[in-house]
Amino acid sequence: MSEDTESQVSEEPREDEDDAYALNPKAVAAILYAVDISDRDQLVELMEPLHAADIADLLEQINAFDRMRLIKLYGQEFDGEILTELDESIREEVINLLNPEVLADAVRELDSDDVVDLLEDLEEDRQTAILEVLEDSDRVAVQQSLTYPEYSAGRLMQREVVMAPEHWNVGEAIDYLRNTEDLPEQFYHIVLVDPRLRPVGNVPLGTLMSSRREVMLKSIVSDTFHVIPVTRYEGEVAYAFNQYHLISAPVVDENERLVGVITIDDAMAVLDEEHEEDILRLAGVGEESSLSDSVLETTKQRFPWLAVNLVTAVLASLVIAQFEEAIATVVALAVLMPIVASMGGNAGTQSLTVAVRALATKDLTGSNVWRVIRREVMVGLINGLAFAVVMGLVGLVWFGSPALGYVIAAAMVINLVIAGLAGTVIPVLLEKVGVDPALASGAFVTTVTDVVGFFAFLGLAVLVLL
Amino acid sequence: MSEDTESQVSEEPREDEDDAYALNPKAVAAILYAVDISDRDQLVELMEPLHAADIADLLEQINAFDRMRLIKLYGQEFDGEILTELDESIREEVINLLNPEVLADAVRELDSDDVVDLLEDLEEDRQTAILEVLEDSDRVAVQQSLTYPEYSAGRLMQREVVMAPEHWNVGEAIDYLRNTEDLPEQFYHIVLVDPRLRPVGNVPLGTLMSSRREVMLKSIVSDTFHVIPVTRYEGEVAYAFNQYHLISAPVVDENERLVGVITIDDAMAVLDEEHEEDILRLAGVGEESSLSDSVLETTKQRFPWLAVNLVTAVLASLVIAQFEEAIATVVALAVLMPIVASMGGNAGTQSLTVAVRALATKDLTGSNVWRVIRREVMVGLINGLAFAVVMGLVGLVWFGSPALGYVIAAAMVINLVIAGLAGTVIPVLLEKVGVDPALASGAFVTTVTDVVGFFAFLGLAVLVLL
Repeated sequence: MSEDTESQVSEEPREDEDDAYALNPKAVAAILYAVDISDRDQLVELMEPLHAADIADLLEQINAFDRMRLIKLYGQEFDGEILTELDESIREEVINLLNPEVLADAVRELDSDDVVDLLEDLEEDRQTAILEVLEDSDRVAVQQSLTYPEYSAGRLMQREVVMAPEHWNVGEAIDYLRNTEDLPEQFYHIVLVDPRLRPVGNVPLGTLMSSRREVMLKSIVSDTFHVIPVTRYEGEVAYAFNQYHLISAPVVDENERLVGVITIDDAMAVLDEEHEEDILRLAGVGEESSLSDSVLETTKQRFPWLAVNLVTAVLASLVIAQFEEAIATVVALAVLMPIVASMGGNAGTQSLTVAVRALATKDLTGSNVWRVIRREVMVGLINGLAFAVVMGLVGLVWFGSPALGYVIAAAMVINLVIAGLAGTVIPVLLEKVGVDPALASGAFVTTVTDVVGFFAFLGLAVLVLL
Repeated sequence: MSEDTESQVSEEPREDEDDAYALNPKAVAAILYAVDISDRDQLVELMEPLHAADIADLLEQINAFDRMRLIKLYGQEFDGEILTELDESIREEVINLLNPEVLADAVRELDSDDVVDLLEDLEEDRQTAILEVLEDSDRVAVQQSLTYPEYSAGRLMQREVVMAPEHWNVGEAIDYLRNTEDLPEQFYHIVLVDPRLRPVGNVPLGTLMSSRREVMLKSIVSDTFHVIPVTRYEGEVAYAFNQYHLISAPVVDENERLVGVITIDDAMAVLDEEHEEDILRLAGVGEESSLSDSVLETTKQRFPWLAVNLVTAVLASLVIAQFEEAIATVVALAVLMPIVASMGGNAGTQSLTVAVRALATKDLTGSNVWRVIRREVMVGLINGLAFAVVMGLVGLVWFGSPALGYVIAAAMVINLVIAGLAGTVIPVLLEKVGVDPALASGAFVTTVTDVVGFFAFLGLAVLVLL
């Protein structure tokens, strides 16, 4: 068995070689050529095999001028689903390009939850215009959803639910399903409800199909059943789906009455967005950023974090300034000091990333926070000692001064220990006071490791060398 | 409508307030108390309401000693599902703690894909021991799956597939389902196959239920149908599910014959792991890291990246060493130089994070790479000019030297432009040569911004000030 495993290492599929799903650059070039020569038939033929999600990606990747020409030429072929797949950053631009009738057709094709997703980021007059083209029943459903808070389960759910009274048996449920005209396009469970419309269980369609007619629905409900309050934050909803392997979950109002259902595909999209936001926040990039943003938008998103970094960098410089005399006397200090700060910054980033992730996945809690802090400090100590030896030798060999070697070694240990401590404590405290640790930890931790790094190294140098 | 939106901002659910799904620290304390006093009944009663995923989280959060005592006390209540939910880092430890009969019972409860997931990380003798307790048919299925490469669709798929010939109608399919004894626990589609067992479409169960008996299955297949080769990398599979909103997808061998099916819940778990890996790689943390890793394991995971960082830091110091004379003459240079390097490092990290994400989501392609590079350089230029003004003034006010102000301003612009360029070009090139850009970009980009930052600032200082 272990030999098998060995030999498979070379066969292991590679992420980068397997570009099965990327848009083919040749296809993109052909499409843009069709736009260039205004050949509508050619364009429609080239776009036909593409999924709406891929068309949306294509529109995001080309420039604004090509986008405009493509949409004008594509005309009434434009599908509502493309709109829901489009990144918010260019969705409004595309909507403004669509001819009102094409837009109306596109919107009427969509499910109510997709219309809500489309509307929530638009200007008021655009919202009104789109609401007007909807059928009355759809409009009411959409308006109702918009009364729930943004990023809540209420905005995410479908309002069309297939439900059955808890006292029904399999036969009654099957007959009901087979005689109902307007079932939702996709559903995987029947929600059992009590007489007050409170959900009490989920019957998977597969189980329903394979059970005898006289079996009570109550006896074949799914093991995993979670009810979601309509105001719950969508990130928590995605967490529950992932943690408990839910496929669909009923959504209830404040009276615990069934008002909708969330399915795993929507939860997966939210999970994806949440991760994306965390990665971008950790790097100090505006979480709403997108590749199709303009230079100006991007500059504005990046500026605040760089400004925060400038403040922390100036703080560190103020520390250095206290030691101008020492640096003028031993210039080697200026050469070596960035190493201590840089190592501390990197070790701190390692610790804080682990802590931020563990907080997000609820793996870091009151039960283990002290053990994790102790671990990070110990890791800082051991790695600090290892790099202290290396840098002590570098200091000795490079500048021929054992004392300088001791100083940089000691500063390295101090800064890596502090990095482990700050990298864990700061995100935990930020979470406690209600600040997103992904967003703010980086600036605080780097300030600590810069200031401590420069102060420990230069301070020890003054004590030992001068 | 816009007023409505305004008033909802305050109601917006907060991530940090909504800890609906975290393990309750009081419950954890009560469980550990039951373990302390060896009260088995109490322990079983407290664990009973917990989902297997939550029990796994609990086991990960407590220390190794408590874990051992809890598992011994919990005894035969231990459920196979807990094993599949456990983090790989402690799974083997837990398996070793289980009494062989409990382990055998636990494993026999599991689906074949879960057994595969369990086995693939175990030592050979453990694997053999577990394979022996399985029923013959299950053992063959598991061994077959293990012949597919690690991280491939073949390892991820369930082997139990509900299929129907493409020429059947709805009535035939329903009768077949209702007369089949051993349908899988969870299935949502029937896969239509041609006479050579090649999948040709997916019929959603909901659509099947609501169609008349004489309707051909072929005419009610789902719009979204994707066939996945058995060797495809699991990350690509997760991408396809997320991009095309798949719920389940048939898996085929090299002859395009149906061999299994992947469902969205497994794809969601993979998506979650892939993101986790990307975040940890970007921060230079071993991707296999887990909160329950020991100090020594953690130290080993963190060491390599810190070692790489030490090399880049020493490279930067070598640049500084070229300017020792200048620094000895104008000590202000030592005070200000880390600011230029630090701003470059941060701007570079912003650009590289956006590029790495866009590569992972296939949003950055040959079609738009030049436009993105141009944008990042322009953003670097504008932000560089803004911070040049600020730092020029700081230099002037702090040190009373207009020349020093010009120098730091110019170095800032140069370094932020280079940061935008390196932050985009480096990940793109790494991806091209088959190196994971999430893993390696950081070291390269920081080296560039450190070296360029120190060289530009100190070099200009020598030209202008001395």
